[in-house]
Amino acid sequence: MAQTLDVIIIGAGSAGLAALREVRKHSENFLLINDGHYGTTCARVGCMPSKALIEAANAYHRRHAFEAFGIRGGGGLSIDPAAVLRRVRALRDDFVAGTLKATDELGERNLAARAKLLAPDTVAAGGREYRARRIIIASGSRPIVPDAWRAFGDRILTSDTLFEQAVLPRRMAVVGLGAIGVEIAQALSRLGVEVTAFGSNPQLAGLSDEAVHQTLAELLQREFSLHTGAAAELSPAADGIELRSGDVRVVVDQVIAAMGRRPNVDGIGLETLGVELDSRGMPPVNPNTLQVGDLPVFLAGDANGRAALLHEAADEGHIAGINASAAEPRCFRRRTPLAIVFADPNVAVVGRRFAELDGETIVVGQVSFARQGRARTAQRNKGLMRLYADRASGRLLGGEMCAPAAEHMVHLLALAIERELTVQDLLRLPFYHPVIEEGMRSALRELSAQLPAGQDSDLASCGGYQAEALD
Amino acid sequence: MAQTLDVIIIGAGSAGLAALREVRKHSENFLLINDGHYGTTCARVGCMPSKALIEAANAYHRRHAFEAFGIRGGGGLSIDPAAVLRRVRALRDDFVAGTLKATDELGERNLAARAKLLAPDTVAAGGREYRARRIIIASGSRPIVPDAWRAFGDRILTSDTLFEQAVLPRRMAVVGLGAIGVEIAQALSRLGVEVTAFGSNPQLAGLSDEAVHQTLAELLQREFSLHTGAAAELSPAADGIELRSGDVRVVVDQVIAAMGRRPNVDGIGLETLGVELDSRGMPPVNPNTLQVGDLPVFLAGDANGRAALLHEAADEGHIAGINASAAEPRCFRRRTPLAIVFADPNVAVVGRRFAELDGETIVVGQVSFARQGRARTAQRNKGLMRLYADRASGRLLGGEMCAPAAEHMVHLLALAIERELTVQDLLRLPFYHPVIEEGMRSALRELSAQLPAGQDSDLASCGGYQAEALD
Repeated sequence: MAQTLDVIIIGAGSAGLAALREVRKHSENFLLINDGHYGTTCARVGCMPSKALIEAANAYHRRHAFEAFGIRGGGGLSIDPAAVLRRVRALRDDFVAGTLKATDELGERNLAARAKLLAPDTVAAGGREYRARRIIIASGSRPIVPDAWRAFGDRILTSDTLFEQAVLPRRMAVVGLGAIGVEIAQALSRLGVEVTAFGSNPQLAGLSDEAVHQTLAELLQREFSLHTGAAAELSPAADGIELRSGDVRVVVDQVIAAMGRRPNVDGIGLETLGVELDSRGMPPVNPNTLQVGDLPVFLAGDANGRAALLHEAADEGHIAGINASAAEPRCFRRRTPLAIVFADPNVAVVGRRFAELDGETIVVGQVSFARQGRARTAQRNKGLMRLYADRASGRLLGGEMCAPAAEHMVHLLALAIERELTVQDLLRLPFYHPVIEEGMRSALRELSAQLPAGQDSDLASCGGYQAEALD
Repeated sequence: MAQTLDVIIIGAGSAGLAALREVRKHSENFLLINDGHYGTTCARVGCMPSKALIEAANAYHRRHAFEAFGIRGGGGLSIDPAAVLRRVRALRDDFVAGTLKATDELGERNLAARAKLLAPDTVAAGGREYRARRIIIASGSRPIVPDAWRAFGDRILTSDTLFEQAVLPRRMAVVGLGAIGVEIAQALSRLGVEVTAFGSNPQLAGLSDEAVHQTLAELLQREFSLHTGAAAELSPAADGIELRSGDVRVVVDQVIAAMGRRPNVDGIGLETLGVELDSRGMPPVNPNTLQVGDLPVFLAGDANGRAALLHEAADEGHIAGINASAAEPRCFRRRTPLAIVFADPNVAVVGRRFAELDGETIVVGQVSFARQGRARTAQRNKGLMRLYADRASGRLLGGEMCAPAAEHMVHLLALAIERELTVQDLLRLPFYHPVIEEGMRSALRELSAQLPAGQDSDLASCGGYQAEALD
């Protein structure tokens, strides 16, 4: 066995590369071990190609608003799914190229192999054993596909394979209606595929607020066939795959499995770490340090099964990289929770979810975008936003929504929650006119009306404020 | 002369109606006097119809991205300007109807007449004199049109008349390239009009940062002919109106005057108030109370010539209404400055303008959206954002930009400026992936790198933060 390394990083995805950036600030005596594709899940098969697909689908879908706007000839538009997918892959290749730069220059310190832990300081890979003072496991995740479905071969797709298709079939089923399932089902439907979607969970897209969920379900049902609350079973049919779920029977050409992602830690040797594993086979991980128990081992990104979100994975790699380079692990405060589903209208959850809150201690303010001024001028007046505030303090706690421009508004709401601002603080914002954010202000005002601190103005009194000259 | 009224409000626009709401909380002994149209400038001829026009223009313009997306047949689209304008007016009528509700029910307390001040407590209108304990002047503004242009009759348009047109001519000139001029010039060009635009001010759309201005000018010049830095002169031509500006000569069918707005206070009798008027004929007004000198008179909204912005006018009416109903005027802190021009990409200025800042005491961070990931997937990757922070404290001070989704991002930036947050505070936000806001984060990181407080992480240390359970 060679010299002891400072750090071994297992996985060259978003978390692993974020860790690498930190490790390299302190040491060049590291080894990056990666099994399978380089280029990150996000850039290769996740966030980026899905957004490229969605943007094309939404641009095409917009033709339904054309007649009302005064634009003629929309009926003559058609979509070329092969061209759409070629563009998706071209963009994907460019985004992937960006991530490859980080590993291309590493030479022998980048090992393409499957890693297996032998002990908290030892890793086997490529037929050799490596020792290290610290180990960062950032081995990512993969889509869940039921074993029985494998018999259908390449007629079962996941986000790993969807974007590789040369064309799209006439009929597709999407099974699983979390973030990925909802995004893909809507996009494929807008690209002309006859989509039938199944979610075993009664709630869509990670929502927990029934009112918002209902709004989303109604909007999606106008676009494609949607079935929730029961699992879907597959069987071969003469002209495709038959899916059965409750009373529903449908035959499709391909099925997309969007039933969540599984951490790539099976077979990685977590049992050799000497810490107790939970029922899912996962070790204890401190989310503020990413340390596994009190071992010199860190488990970051999708691999720890916490949240398969790029910005969280990047933070976790960053924290793990800093802590793997330090004498003592530091404790980092995690960011305000934020999840966005890039459906149209956007779906988003920020801060505390409705289901986590005690109905007795909160007030709820809401706004429908059906009559919202700016949304009407843009023909995007669909959706519902619900915000939650603490009844006693007036602090904004969270929100769930299915609303135009939600992907933007939730960043503002996240800042407010992160800074522990009150509803009144937010009402002191300038809300320009006319903007979608004025809808959010309506929800804030509905909250304000239920809060005790009754004020006669959204504006602050001057206090020590210097009066400005008028001119 | 009848009984003394509590309050007279002159003007039933956005400021006057906001004042009315406050006044009515305390008294029903008021009189609203309005000259000309009811329905507010914003709803009738301003923010709302312009946005309806812009949204149609942008939806049509989007066809240029279709081939790249994989959408075929975009060449067969056409625009029906008459239908566009009919939709604008239909939406306008609906928005106007919303504002009319506030005055419809007032009966005799709503007087349609021109008001003239006779003294700080006396107004003449409709052949009568009215006395009041307080007077709120909220008489609005009107577009500036040079007298010499009136000879061209209805071939000279303003935002008051543009939306009334049944159709659009082949060739139009837009003179004045502030917010309204830039919005209208781009929209008309996108609707198929051959637009030539002239701005006597070298800067476009209220920008003061040359780098942002340059980006905007380049983008607009790809769409229509743009000339800045010299006034335009009009003369009759055989087949239209000739405009000359510097070396430029162009003949058009109609000219839109977008040279700013003038307060409707000429002839209203400000000289009877007994306070000194400035060179523009305007009395001293405290922007935090809206009081004129120490008189029982308030001057709110566009009428005071401060800023012709709906959200400011509404605030000013609100403040004037509260103060006209109180024993002593209260001092209100005004909101963080915010101006948005609904061009594509959006133009916006938030907080302190670049020109107001001392280059020695600030740092500048910027991002180009040309290579921004999400913007590329959406084919909206154009623009530049520049942010300014205080070098000593790291506080965000302001920003100027021409960027996709700027109308959304500036609300977040306004909140940060309002709360006196630092660049580091903002970097603690969750930035979801992939969003346009990640471009803003790049600008923030560029700021952060120039600030002294060098930290190795955007994340906060835990401090007293309770570690979360992983599951």
